[in-house]
Amino acid sequence: MSTHFNNLALFTDLYELTMAACYFKYKMFTPATFSLFIRKYPPNRGYFVSAGLEDVLTFLENLKFSKEDLDYLENTKLFSSDFLHYLSNLHFTGDVFAIPEGRIFFKNEPILEITAPIIEAQLVEPLIINIINFQSSIATKAARCFYAAKGRKLVDFSLRRTHGIDAALKVARASYIAGFMGTSDVLAGRLYNIPTFGTMAHSFILSFDQEISAFRAFSEIFPDNTVLLIDTYDTISGAHKAVIVGKEIKERGLKLKGVRLDSGDTPELSKQVRKIFKESGLNDVSIFVSGGFDEYKISEVLEKGAEIDAFGVGTKMGVSADAPYTDIAYKLVKYDNRPVLKLSAGKETLVDEKQIYRFIENGKLKKDIITLRHESLEGGEPVLELIMEEGRRISPPESLDKIRKRFFEEFSKLDEELKRLKPKREFPIELSPGLRRLQEKVTYKILEKELGES
Amino acid sequence: MSTHFNNLALFTDLYELTMAACYFKYKMFTPATFSLFIRKYPPNRGYFVSAGLEDVLTFLENLKFSKEDLDYLENTKLFSSDFLHYLSNLHFTGDVFAIPEGRIFFKNEPILEITAPIIEAQLVEPLIINIINFQSSIATKAARCFYAAKGRKLVDFSLRRTHGIDAALKVARASYIAGFMGTSDVLAGRLYNIPTFGTMAHSFILSFDQEISAFRAFSEIFPDNTVLLIDTYDTISGAHKAVIVGKEIKERGLKLKGVRLDSGDTPELSKQVRKIFKESGLNDVSIFVSGGFDEYKISEVLEKGAEIDAFGVGTKMGVSADAPYTDIAYKLVKYDNRPVLKLSAGKETLVDEKQIYRFIENGKLKKDIITLRHESLEGGEPVLELIMEEGRRISPPESLDKIRKRFFEEFSKLDEELKRLKPKREFPIELSPGLRRLQEKVTYKILEKELGES
Repeated sequence: MSTHFNNLALFTDLYELTMAACYFKYKMFTPATFSLFIRKYPPNRGYFVSAGLEDVLTFLENLKFSKEDLDYLENTKLFSSDFLHYLSNLHFTGDVFAIPEGRIFFKNEPILEITAPIIEAQLVEPLIINIINFQSSIATKAARCFYAAKGRKLVDFSLRRTHGIDAALKVARASYIAGFMGTSDVLAGRLYNIPTFGTMAHSFILSFDQEISAFRAFSEIFPDNTVLLIDTYDTISGAHKAVIVGKEIKERGLKLKGVRLDSGDTPELSKQVRKIFKESGLNDVSIFVSGGFDEYKISEVLEKGAEIDAFGVGTKMGVSADAPYTDIAYKLVKYDNRPVLKLSAGKETLVDEKQIYRFIENGKLKKDIITLRHESLEGGEPVLELIMEEGRRISPPESLDKIRKRFFEEFSKLDEELKRLKPKREFPIELSPGLRRLQEKVTYKILEKELGES
Repeated sequence: MSTHFNNLALFTDLYELTMAACYFKYKMFTPATFSLFIRKYPPNRGYFVSAGLEDVLTFLENLKFSKEDLDYLENTKLFSSDFLHYLSNLHFTGDVFAIPEGRIFFKNEPILEITAPIIEAQLVEPLIINIINFQSSIATKAARCFYAAKGRKLVDFSLRRTHGIDAALKVARASYIAGFMGTSDVLAGRLYNIPTFGTMAHSFILSFDQEISAFRAFSEIFPDNTVLLIDTYDTISGAHKAVIVGKEIKERGLKLKGVRLDSGDTPELSKQVRKIFKESGLNDVSIFVSGGFDEYKISEVLEKGAEIDAFGVGTKMGVSADAPYTDIAYKLVKYDNRPVLKLSAGKETLVDEKQIYRFIENGKLKKDIITLRHESLEGGEPVLELIMEEGRRISPPESLDKIRKRFFEEFSKLDEELKRLKPKREFPIELSPGLRRLQEKVTYKILEKELGES
């Protein structure tokens, strides 16, 4: 369950290290709190699905500068030997409050808040943003596919088009959390214990002298697990050959599991293929489709009455094609017991350590109220949990199936109007009176102090 | 220079392994050739920049199934012990022709062609597509930024928003190839020996009681290397404070390197800030900007006369936001000395082993002709090179600076009409008569054999 990278201490921006050198020089070791949140919804989004926390915790537990890291930093000639010595002993000693993986969250809500000596909390910024931003974006995209498929099966087919190797593994994991039944990625299957699925490629068909020979060869070896790819030359012609092979398999007391369509007019072809199989008495052959599917195309083909049992969902889900990034930020909200914020145009932050209270009515999520951490609101459920204390996890890693179950439970409570591919409204988020007052007070103080003096 | 992942043999689709089991069972060990190409240009693209080959070669050299991999496969109960034993000894023994990194290429051109026993050539498909697709997409996006910046400096700021950890490292490398001067990513700096750059964060300003105290504290420790972030509270007020600190630095016989703007109306603010510094006699303070830049925004602010010396280019470049994927394919084009292709709707492939000949006129790229591998065209330069023979590299890894130089050289030969952010025409690509004849012949044979029989 690791990130499969060791030694990530240097996965940070250079300025995190130069700022750390200043904090060190000025003996600024008092605790700081940073808050991670997404400022606005990407196009067509009305919610997010939390994913990535497990990787964040693994990273924080293992934070350590190696000898190679320190040698490299020394060679930059930017840093004093005192500071490098300090880094050689550094590890993460902070507290982490976070939204557990698999839960739903909304814009401006703190996803994770870290309280630690400012050097530690600052150095880990880039990797924490990277992990949560990407994995939550993918879990959200996958949840949208899950919603659009209306109960049909989904398999992650994206590993060849994700942005690098790490991304492919995390897409398999995040999409499994958000309702996919598995992945084609064997390494993800091994590392995360996710079910793996596969059919066959066009090259397999081409490597035999005739299409039907390829069909027979495969079904011979995987008699119980054959999904024939039927569009290499012509889908309908391929379907008729699949019928021949399906009947041969049936005669051996077994059955053809399915066929895959990967090109052409899916709704029309899937209906014709279903008809061909029904007329041949092969009623339980599944129709599997692939090729450019995401929530929009899934929804479109189902509206046209496509006869589909399962979707292979690849590229567009694996890169979150319609929203490949979010406006996520990790901001200092408290330093040395002083709530702080920046006023940069269009980039406001909610001050201080916070909590989210979630209210449910008639089994549906009704609203969230963001409060100061110490506040407690009757009737609401706190969403942020203390996950790590003084650099140690509170509890062992969660199983992927537990996280997945948490997703199914909360997703079922999310209103249809928010789940739609183009949501009809925004989920109501309020600020508690206490948070609002503090926000105003801190803003006023800054305006007075920083802008009055210029 | 590795991918920083060991043991990637299982980074493959399950079907690659089930197909391999069939090939093994039927003793299909004869050589196959697969060709990698991009079918069409993503929006606004008129060329691609080659990147990723180094990672492909490292992967192929190290291909090996570990004991854990084999145990996992055994537990799936899909594979015979004969086949697993075969996998335990498998390594890559094929030949690789490829376009060197840093070169320009165009749609439908073979980027890489592998000839190897079909099991080997097939198993490596997903990772090869993944590596070349992502890194070439990013190098292309970065080249577009390089073009738009018209000589101003560019630094990769994307590590916090890329799709995972691997992606961040590869973005730093690919953007450096395509003209960036460096990255903020310290790990990429260490691993690839890329220059690193940094300024300071808003949190640094906030952690001091006053903005000006933060400015002084940083410049005290990095007197020759200070870029002050001036937009935390108000950019103009921040610029005036930077002037005070700049003069203090000057009095010590040193100079303020620059200021950074990260929000607001960049053209207008940059002009005002330049004026403030000029009026104060601080003429050589650089103006560095960041916040949502890519080729489009760079071009837009420069057209408005923005006073900018360097751009921090992050998210949108690091995820190739306007083209987060390409229509890339790795297709069987020859098996057992038989040229092959698939006819699936809209997904045609060029048969057989190929070469690209590039023609130059008046110092500019004029046209490319795709030929059969053995053809030779007078006056043209072959673009594909034999890079690996029988599983071994022909020559040692290339230095990043050599690759970068290759990019600069060829990019300077690319016509302005193709470099524009919205290219005016497509680069001319022809097929040689020999390739065209073979393509028609193979298509005709398939139509006769596969579709005549249904």
